[in-house]
Amino acid sequence: MTAALYAGRFRLNTLILEKMNVGGQIILSSTIENFPGFPGGIATQELIDKMQKQTQDLGISIEPKEALKINVHTKSEKPIYEVITQDKSYQTKSVIIAVGAQPKPLGIKGEDRLIGRGVSYCATCDGPLFKDKEVAVIGGGDRAIEEAIFLSSYARRVTVIHRRNALRASKILEEKLRSNPKVNFILEAVVEEIIGKDKVGALKIKKIANNSIDTLTCQGVFIFVGIKPNTAFLKDMLQLDESGFIITDQDLRTSLPGIFACGDCGKKSLYQVVTACAEGATCAAAAHKYLL
Amino acid sequence: MTAALYAGRFRLNTLILEKMNVGGQIILSSTIENFPGFPGGIATQELIDKMQKQTQDLGISIEPKEALKINVHTKSEKPIYEVITQDKSYQTKSVIIAVGAQPKPLGIKGEDRLIGRGVSYCATCDGPLFKDKEVAVIGGGDRAIEEAIFLSSYARRVTVIHRRNALRASKILEEKLRSNPKVNFILEAVVEEIIGKDKVGALKIKKIANNSIDTLTCQGVFIFVGIKPNTAFLKDMLQLDESGFIITDQDLRTSLPGIFACGDCGKKSLYQVVTACAEGATCAAAAHKYLL
Repeated sequence: MTAALYAGRFRLNTLILEKMNVGGQIILSSTIENFPGFPGGIATQELIDKMQKQTQDLGISIEPKEALKINVHTKSEKPIYEVITQDKSYQTKSVIIAVGAQPKPLGIKGEDRLIGRGVSYCATCDGPLFKDKEVAVIGGGDRAIEEAIFLSSYARRVTVIHRRNALRASKILEEKLRSNPKVNFILEAVVEEIIGKDKVGALKIKKIANNSIDTLTCQGVFIFVGIKPNTAFLKDMLQLDESGFIITDQDLRTSLPGIFACGDCGKKSLYQVVTACAEGATCAAAAHKYLL
Repeated sequence: MTAALYAGRFRLNTLILEKMNVGGQIILSSTIENFPGFPGGIATQELIDKMQKQTQDLGISIEPKEALKINVHTKSEKPIYEVITQDKSYQTKSVIIAVGAQPKPLGIKGEDRLIGRGVSYCATCDGPLFKDKEVAVIGGGDRAIEEAIFLSSYARRVTVIHRRNALRASKILEEKLRSNPKVNFILEAVVEEIIGKDKVGALKIKKIANNSIDTLTCQGVFIFVGIKPNTAFLKDMLQLDESGFIITDQDLRTSLPGIFACGDCGKKSLYQVVTACAEGATCAAAAHKYLL
């Protein structure tokens, strides 16, 4: 949204392609407390609406289409790119890639089979289904802890399972969580299997210290162990790191001229809404300069 | 403010030293239209207040003191820094430098002598003094054009003087300005002298093409020809570029361990509020990681 806001203000002829919903992953959280300018926090949907309004005010349209492939049409210094979607293609001199990321699966037995049957990657979406139930949260970062706090307002018991002996999350979130009587911790442990026939019934948990196996009864398991960039369609085209994140320089230029990348699909040190916004602005300024 | 917001959420023991006013240079503009999350724009003072409230809610205090010098106390891997102010010093393991920048003077005859007597670097501050007067704006970037638009609501005539034949500003700003009947342009020209005994009376302008000299009558001249980082006190300590901007890596680490830099005092490609905010967040995350 911020890339489009800046591109629009530079009066670049700008089109947004969006495969699903504006806002991307932040829709998976209910509120955001650390975006500057909103003391007391703001509902993520409200922030998304405000940002969308800002680009709409500039007359920029959003096409509900998924970019499936990008073809390079000339090999000259300033190539023409053709962005292919299901039913239409778009020619352009410059592309800003802001395709984001999605939750990374654990890759354990039972996980795939029980998605939507107790396995979830979004507390905001599925939390209310677990009123008075027992749930587990897997992960120790900000996202995991935010979601655990959110879940505690529905579930009877929330168990946070993390493979290390300390959480990675901000202290302020950890304090909130630790003062919550509904929350338990199982640290230095990994989940080996999600057990259940038609729906989640329990987790098989291995303690790292002594390899002992425990079973935790629960009806829901929320997995927050990192993100996976949505860059598979770019893998033969752009330089990516081993996890698929797009490699850029400080001006957010990718390995192809005129193609820039911002937000959670890029390799960087801090994955936050405010950093994604700033990167969007930087991409638009870099594209503007490139097109001069 | 965003560095403090994030540092506070990481529960780092955080203190803000502020020599003048919270918000820095943006106070020189009246409204900001391109900060994401505020369709229709927001008054800069209101945005500053909101950001300040957010850090205050975390219990972070602001000391009204100027950092004059930073001493390094040990040469070990993690040194102790001593930040010296007029009357007090502070020992810390990590410093986030967010000292910003200030308007760059033209360095021409009459400029220094007539500051506050018609020479200004802030339309928001001084614009209302020029109701129905003739003013000149020097510069062609976003800031210059925003200020020219603002001044046109007071002044009888606004003349924009820029050394190139095209403006550097966003097209959307240029269009706004060009559709304004009060505004004239003198392009490919430089101001050689500001003329006036006790107050500004005219400008001596040289056309670049043929070196011809013209005189423009005006009572005010607003200078927006770039910024100068407030880093003089750091010049023997940190690696700076030739203009004084602090050189950092992608994690915003400076040349000394535990010292980070964000905002307009750093060398970067886009000087905007949203990029400064994101850099503040990145600095706090980097400091948190450094202090683990």
